[in-house]
Amino acid sequence: MCELLGMSANVPTDICFSFQGLIQRGGGTGPHKDGWGIVFYEGKGIREFRDPGASVESRIAQLVQCYPIKSCYVISHIRQANVGSVCLENTHPFTRELWGQNWTLAHNGQLKGSEELALGKDLPVGTTDSERAFCWLLAELRCRFSEAPDIQTLSEFLHPRCERLRAMGVCNLLLSNGQWLLAYCSTKLQWITRCAPFGEASLTDADVSVDFAGETTPNDVVTVIATEPLTCNEQWTPMAPGELIAFVDGDPVQRLTV
Amino acid sequence: MCELLGMSANVPTDICFSFQGLIQRGGGTGPHKDGWGIVFYEGKGIREFRDPGASVESRIAQLVQCYPIKSCYVISHIRQANVGSVCLENTHPFTRELWGQNWTLAHNGQLKGSEELALGKDLPVGTTDSERAFCWLLAELRCRFSEAPDIQTLSEFLHPRCERLRAMGVCNLLLSNGQWLLAYCSTKLQWITRCAPFGEASLTDADVSVDFAGETTPNDVVTVIATEPLTCNEQWTPMAPGELIAFVDGDPVQRLTV
Repeated sequence: MCELLGMSANVPTDICFSFQGLIQRGGGTGPHKDGWGIVFYEGKGIREFRDPGASVESRIAQLVQCYPIKSCYVISHIRQANVGSVCLENTHPFTRELWGQNWTLAHNGQLKGSEELALGKDLPVGTTDSERAFCWLLAELRCRFSEAPDIQTLSEFLHPRCERLRAMGVCNLLLSNGQWLLAYCSTKLQWITRCAPFGEASLTDADVSVDFAGETTPNDVVTVIATEPLTCNEQWTPMAPGELIAFVDGDPVQRLTV
Repeated sequence: MCELLGMSANVPTDICFSFQGLIQRGGGTGPHKDGWGIVFYEGKGIREFRDPGASVESRIAQLVQCYPIKSCYVISHIRQANVGSVCLENTHPFTRELWGQNWTLAHNGQLKGSEELALGKDLPVGTTDSERAFCWLLAELRCRFSEAPDIQTLSEFLHPRCERLRAMGVCNLLLSNGQWLLAYCSTKLQWITRCAPFGEASLTDADVSVDFAGETTPNDVVTVIATEPLTCNEQWTPMAPGELIAFVDGDPVQRLTV
């Protein structure tokens, strides 16, 4: 399986602390050593970093961990391969252009029968079930909408399609276009919103703490979503199976359940 | 304007030496300080690094310069903005999926009337004439071919379309899908093929030399394409205006002229 990390914030925020925790699980405290990737939004543009090897040994991951790239939306993934060999094109997150926007998806789980998902113009480059599911979602979206709908309409459209994917196996998903982030839970996904008064947080996977009060302003709202809580002294909220939450500016603006 | 750098090789080769020369021109020995980017192919997958600032000051560019990523196809670009503001989404190279392949384009020049180029499903994310021209080329390709043609057919199809772009202003282009690299010259593009017996090369823009004999095997063939020669002690071949060359495994397999 794999692990997911996402962020939605109302001000550009670096994710160094959370990412430092996550990458320990890529060959260090966890077995997810078959690649890692991270996508940062800056306006409409994206930066991508990825490697088909263990994040804990990656020089590029070390740079990302130390270099504070400020972003309002981030999606990251560490991989333990099941479907698809270990190579760069099978490394999440996947990105595609839709309606003049960069869309990004990362997936944790396995989908049985993903080859039956009908595709449109967007074709997979690699061989993962995850990328195929992404291409299918894009085909569904292109078929229904000719331009970007609002986030409520979009969430309501995507929720039953995420449910269809969940029926094929396990499907924890993070999806973003840089204006919102959608989290869909099949089995494991937890989130935490940090806002004033900010406190101290300690990583579960490394002996590292940070006092967010010194790193933020009182108006900052930063939500982090992860497969497993990344900190050991904060209260994370587990999502329910079948639950979809849309985050905008760090706030959960819509929650859909089954 | 901007500067381009491309590589086609028959064995995975790092581009650290050439890239080190190029990035000096991004705010150091040259004025191209409005962003830089580089795309490396590894199999069907790609790695992308980019920054909207000056390459000579970029920590990410420093990593790319020092960290030997081996690849057979690379496209890089340093930007001096004309059309489109300085931001991440306007930073070359641009990448899109076509026929299940990652396609990459970088452009040097200005295209007058690019808003009249008809688009299909691929829409620009940013506001450059370059990205719009790329989307137009993709629309033309999707309209004519339902799957990837051979490189000869492709070159013959693209050459008159590059000529149309050249008629709109200045259009030096590098395009690749990781199996071939196309270079099209409007005003300035030069190339060099390094093969046995390998010699020493010295950068024009930095006091750095390399003895390729110690870095290669006798069967290696590595072609580097750049706006201006990157070395001062080798013979680069200038392309003619209107000339298109397709490189496969470092070899020029097709040349089309006007």
